[in-house]
Amino acid sequence: MLEEIYRRRSIRKFQPQEVEEEKIRALLKAGMSGPSAVDARDWSFIVVRERETLLRMAEANGPAADPLREAPLGILICGDTARTYAKAPDFWIVDCSIATQNMVLAAENLDLGCVWLGTWPHRDRVEGQRALFDLPAGIEPHSILAIGYPAETPQRPKTDWEDDRIHWEHW
Amino acid sequence: MLEEIYRRRSIRKFQPQEVEEEKIRALLKAGMSGPSAVDARDWSFIVVRERETLLRMAEANGPAADPLREAPLGILICGDTARTYAKAPDFWIVDCSIATQNMVLAAENLDLGCVWLGTWPHRDRVEGQRALFDLPAGIEPHSILAIGYPAETPQRPKTDWEDDRIHWEHW
Repeated sequence: MLEEIYRRRSIRKFQPQEVEEEKIRALLKAGMSGPSAVDARDWSFIVVRERETLLRMAEANGPAADPLREAPLGILICGDTARTYAKAPDFWIVDCSIATQNMVLAAENLDLGCVWLGTWPHRDRVEGQRALFDLPAGIEPHSILAIGYPAETPQRPKTDWEDDRIHWEHW
Repeated sequence: MLEEIYRRRSIRKFQPQEVEEEKIRALLKAGMSGPSAVDARDWSFIVVRERETLLRMAEANGPAADPLREAPLGILICGDTARTYAKAPDFWIVDCSIATQNMVLAAENLDLGCVWLGTWPHRDRVEGQRALFDLPAGIEPHSILAIGYPAETPQRPKTDWEDDRIHWEHW
């Protein structure tokens, strides 16, 4: 698994081929396998394959979300604040990040590619997704993954080690 | 990798054995391999093996942080807001969550166990870690991992699938 964590890169161009439902379920299981604060599992997922909806999700999430226009699959990860840890409710933001990263890594393992499209904390993107899906109160849009079989191989070198980010024993 | 994502469980009891420096570096590389908003890599890590400091970290992070008192290794993950995406600075919270979850999964792969101890968004825990490490302005405590070789095998069943968390095409 370490090599998959190290080699993963964001993929923004996809083949038109659909993602098999078995793989979609494997991704969702990965999302639901993460830890969450006091095991609240305060997340929800909207799985979208209809082109019209994917286009509207892209429109509502700003220019960086353009990969959704061609991706065969988009998943909107939402927090469910009715479930979140009452003593520190903003943990839903961390818990949804965990679920999303688990799906990012699962995609790598399933020979899929994806790009993480941040929704929270952009207020306009959050409100755009909320309006599009007519979300009930307490359901908070967090992130979107655009997913599919890769049609590109990223060439730019990846920075995965910076000595000045690490402090030993004290700051 | 999927099986490792699915089987991972929080470990709160550790053997006294130290974690090899090679493994610590593998964990940190995993942390720095995650995506971040506009590739800001807005994180920093404090690696702690000194018992006195681990005890003080536990003290500052509330009762759930007790596993740190026996763990041979603790890593405090911090955001670096001087690096974060200026148009949506709170992305550091997501980026640090990604780095932390990558380390959680890397630990599983390295036959280590760990438990994620939430610091942010508990204001008192954040201020406690900040004071302990005398952090400069802009460095924001996010989470702590207590890490070591496992001395327990969690028995409680894990919930990794809930149909009502999944919505197909619309909410």
